Amino acid sequence: MSATFDFDLEWVIDAIEKRGAKKVGLQFPEGLKRFGPAIAKEIQERTGAISYISGNPCYGACDVDVILQTHVDVLFHFGHAHRSVDDVIFIETRSDVDIRPVMEQAVKILKGDVIGLITTVQHVHKLEEAHDILSRHGKTCIIGRVDSRLKYKGQVLGCNFSAAQVNADEFIYIGSGNFHPLGVTLATSKRVIIADPMSNEVRETNPEPILRQRHAIIARALDAETFGIIICTKSGQMRVDLADKLWKKARKKGLVAYLISMDEITPERLNSFKADAFVNTGCPRIAIDDVAMFKVPMLTPIEFEVVLGERGWDEIEFDEILGGCLFISTR
Amino acid sequence: MSATFDFDLEWVIDAIEKRGAKKVGLQFPEGLKRFGPAIAKEIQERTGAISYISGNPCYGACDVDVILQTHVDVLFHFGHAHRSVDDVIFIETRSDVDIRPVMEQAVKILKGDVIGLITTVQHVHKLEEAHDILSRHGKTCIIGRVDSRLKYKGQVLGCNFSAAQVNADEFIYIGSGNFHPLGVTLATSKRVIIADPMSNEVRETNPEPILRQRHAIIARALDAETFGIIICTKSGQMRVDLADKLWKKARKKGLVAYLISMDEITPERLNSFKADAFVNTGCPRIAIDDVAMFKVPMLTPIEFEVVLGERGWDEIEFDEILGGCLFISTR
Repeated sequence: MSATFDFDLEWVIDAIEKRGAKKVGLQFPEGLKRFGPAIAKEIQERTGAISYISGNPCYGACDVDVILQTHVDVLFHFGHAHRSVDDVIFIETRSDVDIRPVMEQAVKILKGDVIGLITTVQHVHKLEEAHDILSRHGKTCIIGRVDSRLKYKGQVLGCNFSAAQVNADEFIYIGSGNFHPLGVTLATSKRVIIADPMSNEVRETNPEPILRQRHAIIARALDAETFGIIICTKSGQMRVDLADKLWKKARKKGLVAYLISMDEITPERLNSFKADAFVNTGCPRIAIDDVAMFKVPMLTPIEFEVVLGERGWDEIEFDEILGGCLFISTR
Repeated sequence: MSATFDFDLEWVIDAIEKRGAKKVGLQFPEGLKRFGPAIAKEIQERTGAISYISGNPCYGACDVDVILQTHVDVLFHFGHAHRSVDDVIFIETRSDVDIRPVMEQAVKILKGDVIGLITTVQHVHKLEEAHDILSRHGKTCIIGRVDSRLKYKGQVLGCNFSAAQVNADEFIYIGSGNFHPLGVTLATSKRVIIADPMSNEVRETNPEPILRQRHAIIARALDAETFGIIICTKSGQMRVDLADKLWKKARKKGLVAYLISMDEITPERLNSFKADAFVNTGCPRIAIDDVAMFKVPMLTPIEFEVVLGERGWDEIEFDEILGGCLFISTR
């Protein structure tokens, strides 16, 4: 189906047959949605089950299509690592890209002796190989334990850097994009090297631009009088208690605040609401990735605490959605 | 709160107190969302209950925020007439605009003797007054019975014109916009006069442009080989059986078809899917109102039957979502 992604289709078909499922839901992240129709066709031809592909946006395992789920016998959620959700089967799609060339490059610019290794689920099966490469170069390698929201040692989410809570001199992040490794930089204050096996590019994170931008957003929000506090209803992002707490804090400070509950958080949807600033208790990436799209400041809960005067400017961190105790993955 | 809309706030507060509700959901259509924060504040101050305003788009009573509903003690859905949904209280917002001036104008251009009166819930409490005006001018006036999806005699939705199934010579539609009266024109082949009490404007519907446009869309879809058949998961729009039936029909004709399940249907969300044409079994207005925004033809189920050769070009109708037997409203 694709040279780069493995959809575990034999396993999926076997699971459908074992369950005798007649109606099957298929959910894909944006980059994999285009494979949906062909997978639906193959499932139909080989099992007779009818497939419904979710057309809603999907950005993570936190984003289960719970409405579709109620209308099918089984829902397969592709591309993200398992979380515990009843009747949802998470099918991880692993990249078969070779990480060795980019790791060999990354090793050359290391400064420390103890190196933390982190990645997303797409490359997590290559961490042992990365570990061996580092060891061959005389480095001590740590693949950190994760908390209960994650499945694999060394795995990070855009909102969970528990795997980086280790005593390393610096980190190598295997993957594309800047958001995850930037989060690790801000969470640990340590040097993070991005080793991108897709582009074969090695670079260091630079948290300065994003910190300056967040400071500017907070500064703009200091004059705000009315705050819209957003609860995201996506199944793994719903922090109602946190939102309620922030709402009460705002009111205590004499500010006007109200609570908005929604699934996708977009500038268009917020246009109907008047507020001088918004606070998003859902996905922490929204405030940061989409900063330019919002007309008024969009704060994370941590940044809102700075605005409220309850946290110092030097205590700004990435907002993380953390689970319970750290544990070592057993797989 | 507004000179034009009545939110029945005393009744809402009474209902919250009677139920002892601590968590209250508030849902508004787009045009009324801006009133949400003030209503939330008043509810909080007078009852102590905490309010959560739905930030999701809302276009009708078919569009209940079922996720928010699971997290509150009671959900108030403002601006649309009642449908039977557990634990949702529909608060109709009635316009107090005077319909007499525009009705007096409309009467002048009537040609027939028996006039059907239709409107949306916003003005439905004025139908008796409209009836009296017509009678004074010597007209026989019919306010049609509606099917089980509707609440009031003479009431229409954008997808339900059962109130127009009466033996009238022509119709007067009281309200703004063209969609509802155009639907009546196409459903009845009779003359429909729009009497807009907001702008005090009277005009006749002209179905020709929209019919030409729909013919062009169908013509473009005749060459399509791959169809995406969309199921909308909004609570009052979900027609899975219809979608399944269309999917089977397409496959019988040797076409490639697959099923997509989603809540909001937007061009951006469909960009991830490759299809030569889409068929929307959800809100019939999407295909028609948003025609220019979709890159490929977006068909209604009825139009898809024309493409499949199962219905003649002269049998094109507006897609209606109908309920059971016609009944006379008792309110």
